[in-house]
Amino acid sequence: TTASRTQYIKTDGEVNGVPKLMDLLDDPVPGVGTYEDFNTIDWVREKSKDRDRHREITSKSKESTWALVKSVSDAFSGWLLMLLIGLMSGALAGGIDISAHWMTDLKEGVCLNGFWFNHEHCCWTSNETTFQERDKCPQWKSWAELIIGTTEGPFAYITNYLMYVCWALLFAFLAVTLVRAFAPYACGSGIPEIKTILSGFIIRGYLGKWTLIIKTITLVLAVSSGLSLGKEGPLVHVACCCGNILCHLFTKYRKNEAKRREVLSAAAAVGVSVAFGAPIGGVLFSLEEVSYYFPLKTLWRSFFAALVAAFTLRSINPFGNSRLVLFYVEFHTPWHLLELVPFVLLGIFGGIWGAFFIRANIAWCRRRKTTWLGHYPVLEVLVVTAITAVVAFPNSYTRTSTSELISELFNDCGLLDSSKLCNYDNANVTKSSNELPDRPAGDDVYTAMWQLSLALVFKMLITVVTFGMKVPSGLFIPSMAVGAIAGRLLGIGMEQLAYYHHDWAIFRGWCSPGADCITPGLYAMVGAAACLGGVTRMTVSLVVIMFELTGGLEYIVPLMAAAMTSKWVAHIRLNGYPFLEAKEEFSHKTLAMDVMRPRRSDPPLSVLTQDGMTVEDVETMITETTYSGFPVVVSHESQRLVGFVLRRDLTISIDNARQRQDGIVSTSRIFFTEYTPPQPPSSPPPLKLRGIMDLSPFTVTDHTAMDIVVDIFRKLGLRQCLITHNGRLLGIITKKDILKHVAQIANRDPDSILFN
Amino acid sequence: TTASRTQYIKTDGEVNGVPKLMDLLDDPVPGVGTYEDFNTIDWVREKSKDRDRHREITSKSKESTWALVKSVSDAFSGWLLMLLIGLMSGALAGGIDISAHWMTDLKEGVCLNGFWFNHEHCCWTSNETTFQERDKCPQWKSWAELIIGTTEGPFAYITNYLMYVCWALLFAFLAVTLVRAFAPYACGSGIPEIKTILSGFIIRGYLGKWTLIIKTITLVLAVSSGLSLGKEGPLVHVACCCGNILCHLFTKYRKNEAKRREVLSAAAAVGVSVAFGAPIGGVLFSLEEVSYYFPLKTLWRSFFAALVAAFTLRSINPFGNSRLVLFYVEFHTPWHLLELVPFVLLGIFGGIWGAFFIRANIAWCRRRKTTWLGHYPVLEVLVVTAITAVVAFPNSYTRTSTSELISELFNDCGLLDSSKLCNYDNANVTKSSNELPDRPAGDDVYTAMWQLSLALVFKMLITVVTFGMKVPSGLFIPSMAVGAIAGRLLGIGMEQLAYYHHDWAIFRGWCSPGADCITPGLYAMVGAAACLGGVTRMTVSLVVIMFELTGGLEYIVPLMAAAMTSKWVAHIRLNGYPFLEAKEEFSHKTLAMDVMRPRRSDPPLSVLTQDGMTVEDVETMITETTYSGFPVVVSHESQRLVGFVLRRDLTISIDNARQRQDGIVSTSRIFFTEYTPPQPPSSPPPLKLRGIMDLSPFTVTDHTAMDIVVDIFRKLGLRQCLITHNGRLLGIITKKDILKHVAQIANRDPDSILFN
Repeated sequence: TTASRTQYIKTDGEVNGVPKLMDLLDDPVPGVGTYEDFNTIDWVREKSKDRDRHREITSKSKESTWALVKSVSDAFSGWLLMLLIGLMSGALAGGIDISAHWMTDLKEGVCLNGFWFNHEHCCWTSNETTFQERDKCPQWKSWAELIIGTTEGPFAYITNYLMYVCWALLFAFLAVTLVRAFAPYACGSGIPEIKTILSGFIIRGYLGKWTLIIKTITLVLAVSSGLSLGKEGPLVHVACCCGNILCHLFTKYRKNEAKRREVLSAAAAVGVSVAFGAPIGGVLFSLEEVSYYFPLKTLWRSFFAALVAAFTLRSINPFGNSRLVLFYVEFHTPWHLLELVPFVLLGIFGGIWGAFFIRANIAWCRRRKTTWLGHYPVLEVLVVTAITAVVAFPNSYTRTSTSELISELFNDCGLLDSSKLCNYDNANVTKSSNELPDRPAGDDVYTAMWQLSLALVFKMLITVVTFGMKVPSGLFIPSMAVGAIAGRLLGIGMEQLAYYHHDWAIFRGWCSPGADCITPGLYAMVGAAACLGGVTRMTVSLVVIMFELTGGLEYIVPLMAAAMTSKWVAHIRLNGYPFLEAKEEFSHKTLAMDVMRPRRSDPPLSVLTQDGMTVEDVETMITETTYSGFPVVVSHESQRLVGFVLRRDLTISIDNARQRQDGIVSTSRIFFTEYTPPQPPSSPPPLKLRGIMDLSPFTVTDHTAMDIVVDIFRKLGLRQCLITHNGRLLGIITKKDILKHVAQIANRDPDSILFN
Repeated sequence: TTASRTQYIKTDGEVNGVPKLMDLLDDPVPGVGTYEDFNTIDWVREKSKDRDRHREITSKSKESTWALVKSVSDAFSGWLLMLLIGLMSGALAGGIDISAHWMTDLKEGVCLNGFWFNHEHCCWTSNETTFQERDKCPQWKSWAELIIGTTEGPFAYITNYLMYVCWALLFAFLAVTLVRAFAPYACGSGIPEIKTILSGFIIRGYLGKWTLIIKTITLVLAVSSGLSLGKEGPLVHVACCCGNILCHLFTKYRKNEAKRREVLSAAAAVGVSVAFGAPIGGVLFSLEEVSYYFPLKTLWRSFFAALVAAFTLRSINPFGNSRLVLFYVEFHTPWHLLELVPFVLLGIFGGIWGAFFIRANIAWCRRRKTTWLGHYPVLEVLVVTAITAVVAFPNSYTRTSTSELISELFNDCGLLDSSKLCNYDNANVTKSSNELPDRPAGDDVYTAMWQLSLALVFKMLITVVTFGMKVPSGLFIPSMAVGAIAGRLLGIGMEQLAYYHHDWAIFRGWCSPGADCITPGLYAMVGAAACLGGVTRMTVSLVVIMFELTGGLEYIVPLMAAAMTSKWVAHIRLNGYPFLEAKEEFSHKTLAMDVMRPRRSDPPLSVLTQDGMTVEDVETMITETTYSGFPVVVSHESQRLVGFVLRRDLTISIDNARQRQDGIVSTSRIFFTEYTPPQPPSSPPPLKLRGIMDLSPFTVTDHTAMDIVVDIFRKLGLRQCLITHNGRLLGIITKKDILKHVAQIANRDPDSILFN
C-alpha cells in the first residue's frame, strides 16, 4: 500500500505544476493531433479538446471586454452557423427545384415569351388559359410545332419523341462527364459515405466546394434527363457540403472534427427538410439513420436549421403553390379499420420489393465491377438514358417527372380534376361539396390503370440498373413511385369492388351506395411509404415525414402499419428467418480476450517502454510495424500500462526533434516519464515525449464481454482500447476489430446501399 | 513479456472451462445480483444479463418447436407490452378526463336527466338548445335553482358561491386525505422522481398499483377542486405506473431493471401523448427530458405506444369533439415578420415568469419544510383551496376549469362566437367568409381584459403556493394559462393598435383597413408556449407538442422564437450571466485524481486481496465500512486490480456459506482466484467466491479528465469506476462523487422542481 500511496501523493502534488496533455497538444509541433485521410478520429480527444477550448475562453472572458465579446460570439456561433446552413441549403434546393423543373419541360418544348420560363410559368403569363386547361396556352410551343410547324400527325409525334430523347441524352452526357472530370465524389446519393464520415471517418474532399458545385449542377442534369432517380438523397449530400464549407468560417468548428460532425448531423436534417418540406422528419431522419453522435444540443440546433431551410425554400416557392411540402395531400374521408388488410398487403409488397431491389442492385453492381461494363461508365449512362427515354415517352405516366407522377397518384379526385385517373361517372353526383361518393370508373380510368401497370414494371426494372451509375442519384423518389403506382392500382380496385359489391359482408355498413368510403390516393400514399420503408428500412422518421406531408394524425396508423410490415418483410426476405439462422459459434458469449490482438499464435504486442528506448529503437519499431499507435509500459517485465502514443504524433515529433533540437541523434534516449533522470555527460541529450502521450488510454479487462466492449466503442467513439489482466497489458482491440466482430455476429445485410 | 504471455495463454485456455460470471449470477445464491431499495442499478450488468438471456433463448430455439414459439413470443412481447400500455393509459386518461369534467361541473349544478351527466352532455340530450346557447338548457340546474328555487338575485348568487366553495373543499379534502392515507408517493407530478428512476435509481412502490389507483382518483379530485394545477404531469406518472405494472406480465421485463426502464421511457411518452394528444411530442419529450437510456428500438416502440394511447383516448372521446388534441386551434391568417417583436417580448415575459416561479416556489417549499406549515398538510390544502375558490368564483375566467380558459384564449374569434372576448363591432363586416378583418373592440372585450388581468395576477400568485402541496399536481396547465392570458392581452392590444393606427409606418402595407392582420389567439398560444418553456425549459418537444396542437408548420417560427427566448431568459435570470459567474476553481481542468477517493488525508482504500483474507477479515471489513463494494487486488503490495465485489453479494454469499456449506468458519480463507491452492489438512475448507466477483470492473487512469469520466458514467450507466496509475489501483469514483462534481461545476438551478 505504501508504494502506491507514495505514488499517488507524488502525482497528485504535481497536478498544477505538470503541463497537461492538452496544453501540449495546442500545437507545440505542427501536425501533432491531426489526422490523415481515410483515418478515424478520436472522439474522446476531440471532445476533450473542445472542452479545454471552451474552458479557456470562459476563464479569459473575465479579463477584458474584448474577451467577453469573443466568448459571447463563440457561444452564439453555433446558432449563426445553423442559420447560414439553413439559408444556403434552402436557397440551393430552391435553385435545383426551379432548374430541374425548367429543364424537364425543355425536353418537350419551349416558351415563346422567354425560353427561361417553364411550361406552367409560361402559361401563367397568358391570359387565355382557363383553370381547366392550365397546361395549354399558345405561348408554349412543343418542339414539333417549332420545327415542323404542326402538333398533329405522326411526324409531329416523331419529332417530339426524337427531341425528347436527344435532350435526355445531352443532359445525361453532361452530368456524367462533369462528375468524371471534376468531382468523382459527386456521384450516387452520398448518404452511406456521410454516415461513414459522421461515425468519425475522414474522407477529404468528400464535402468540399467542388463536390458541392458539381453535385448541384449534375443533380439538375440527371433529374432532368428523365432517369429513374430522385434528388432527395443527393440533397442531403448537398446540405452536408454546405455545412462543411460554412464550418470554415468558425474556428470552433474548423479545427475540431467532433464539433464539425455535430454540424454535419444538423446539415443532414436540413437536407431531408428541404427535400420533403419536413423539418421534424428531417431531424428524426438524422437522429435515427445517419448520425453517430447526436447530443440534445444538436437536436435543437438541427431543428432550427431545418426550419430555416424549409422557410427559405418556401420563400423561393419553387412549386409555385406556397406549400412547404413536396406532395401536399388532403383527404376528406377517414379510413376504415378493415382497410388495414390492403394496407398490410401494400406493406408486404413494399417489403418484397425492397428486398428484391437491394438484391438485384447488389448483383448488378457486382456485375458492373467485374465485367467490361465498369470500364465505360459514360456509355452505360447514355445507354440507360436512351432506353429510359425511348420507353418512357409513349406512356404519359413515365414521360412526366417522377415527382409529378407521385403528386397525381396521391391526389384525391375532385369533381374538377382533369386527370385521366379522375374520369369517373359523375351522373349521380348532385351535391357540390368536397365529399364525393364512390362512383363507377370511366374508360379513361381503365386506360390509366393499364398504363400505370406498364409504368410499374418499367420503373421497377430500370431503377435497378440506374442506381449506382456515375451520376448523382437518389432512391427515395423512384421507390415512392413504385409504391404509389401499386397503391393507386390497389386503391382503384378496392374502390370499384366496394362500388359494385357494396352488399358484400365486408363492405356492409360502411360502403353503402352514395358513401365516399375508399380513397385511392391514400392507398398510393401508403404504398409509397411501404416501398420507401422496404428499401431504406426507415421507420419513425419515414412515418413522421409522411405525417408532415399529410399534416394530420388520421393517417399515421395506416402508414405505420405499412412501414412496419414492409420493414419486417424486407428484413426476413433478406436475412432469412432470424431465429433459425443464429449461428452456432455465436451462441456462446465472446470475451475481449477472444477478439483482442495479438492472437495466441501472433508475435507479442509492440510496446514502448517509458524510459528504456532510444530514438533508433523507436524508429525501427515504426518502420517494422504498421500499427497506428503504441502502448507505453513501465517496463517489458512488469507490462504495467502508462499511456498510449499515436504513430503519427511519434513520427512527427521525432522528425521535428531531429531537425530542430540540438544533439538529438539515433542513440538519444526517449523518455515518457515525468522526470528525466540525469544523463551521463557523454551521452546525447534525452528526448522528452510525455507531451504527446495520451495519459488516459481506455482499458478493459480480458474478461469483459464483447457486447460491453462494442457498447463502449459505440458510445464513446473510441479508436482503440487496451486489454489488461490483473493490471498487466495483454493486448489491444481497435475499431476495425470491433467492426469485424459486429459484422461477423450480425451477419448483416449490406448497409452500404441503404438510404440512397 | 514472458510472464504476461504465460498469464495470457493460461487464462485464454480456460475460457470454456471456467464458469462465466453470468452463469453464476443465475441465482446460485438467492439474492445475489438484486438491488436494495434506494440504490442505483448497474446498467452494464443488467444489459449484459439481458443479452445472455436473449442468447440462451436464441440458441435453444433450434432444439424444439416449443422453444421456437417461446423465442418468437419473446421477440414480440415488447410490442405486445407497448400495445397494452397504450390501451390502459389511454383508457385511464379518458376516464380521468370524463370524471374531472363531470366533477368540475358538479361544483356549479347538477343535471336532472341523470346526475352523472356533465353540463355539456346534459344539454346535448335537450332539444331546446340552440347552437348559440349550447350551455343553457332547462335540464341543467344550478345549485341555487335546486336549493332556493331561483337563479336571480343576490341570494342565488351567494348560494351558488357557497356550494362552489363547499364542493371544492370537499374534493380537496378527499384528495389530500386519500394521498396521505394510502399512497404518499401519489402527490406532486412525479416527473422528477420518474427521471431519477429512469436514470437507474430504485424506489420501490413509486410505480406500484396503490400509487396508480390513488393517484388516478386523487388527480380527478384535485383537478375538480379548482386548485391551480394541471393533470398533464401526473398523467405521465399514471402512464409509468401502468407500464411498470404491466411489466410484471413478462419475465423479460419483470426481472431486468434496465429493460424495465426502457418500457418506462416509452410509458412517459405515452403519458404526454394522452395529456396533449401529441404522440410525436410525447416521444420527443421522453427523449429530451425524461429518459436516460433511450436506444432507437425504444424510440420506435414509444412511438407505437403513444399512438395506440392517443387513438384509445380518441375512441373514448372525452372532449366530445372527436379531436385528438386538448386544444384544437385553427388560425386563418398568416403571421407577419414584424410580429416577431411581440412574440419575443412574450418569450421574455415567459422566461422571467419561469425564473420567478421557480425561485418563489423553492422559497415557499423551504418555508413549508422549516416552519409549522409543514406539519399541517391537510389544513394547508384546505386553506389554499378555500382561497382559490373564494377568489376564483366571482371572475368567470377563473371559475371555469383552466383548460377551458386556455381553449377560449387560443380561439380565433369567428362571427358566431358568443364569448365576451369576441365582442367586436361587426358593423363593417359584410362578407361571410372565415377571414374577418380587424375590428374595433366592443365594451365586453374591455371588461374581459380587466377580468383577465386580475386572473393573471391571481394565477401567478396562487400557483406558487399550490405547487408542492400534498396532492397530485402538474405545472403544465397553470403555466400555459398564465402565458395564454398574457398573450391574449398583448394580442388584443396589438390588434386595436393596428386598427386605430393602421397608418403608422410599422403597420403600413400590412394592416390596411379591412385586412385581418393580427390574430390574438395566436398571441395567446405563443404566450402559453413561452411560459411553459420558461418553467420547464423544454425546447424541441415543447415546440413539437404545440405544432401537433395547431397541425401546421406556419406557426412553428413564432413558437420557437418565444420558447427559445424564454428558455434563455429564464436561464440567465436563474443562474446569472453564465460568462461572468464561471467560478475560478473550475477554470482549470479537473482530473480523475482530484475527485477520486480516498483523498489525500483519508485512510487508504479498503480492498480485498484475491487469496490472503479469512472470512473474519472480510466480515470485519464489512462491519467497519459502509462502502457498497470492494475492489479485489492481487496483493496489498502490488495493488494490481483483479475485480470488484459488491457488498450485498459478499454479505449474502458469506451468510449463505456459513449456514449451508460444511466447515466454513471465521478462519476459513476466502479465494477469488481461479484455482484454490491445496490447503493444509488442519485448516478449515476454503470459501471460493470468484463467482460473485465482477471480472471486468471499469477502470480509468488518474490522469483522465473528469469531463471524460462524467461522459463514461453517463453513457454507460456505471455505478463506480476504479482509478489506476501505471497499472496499480489508486482509488475509486462512484456515481455519487460524479453527481457531486457535476453539481459543483454547473452550479445548476435545482432540477428537481422542473417538468412538473
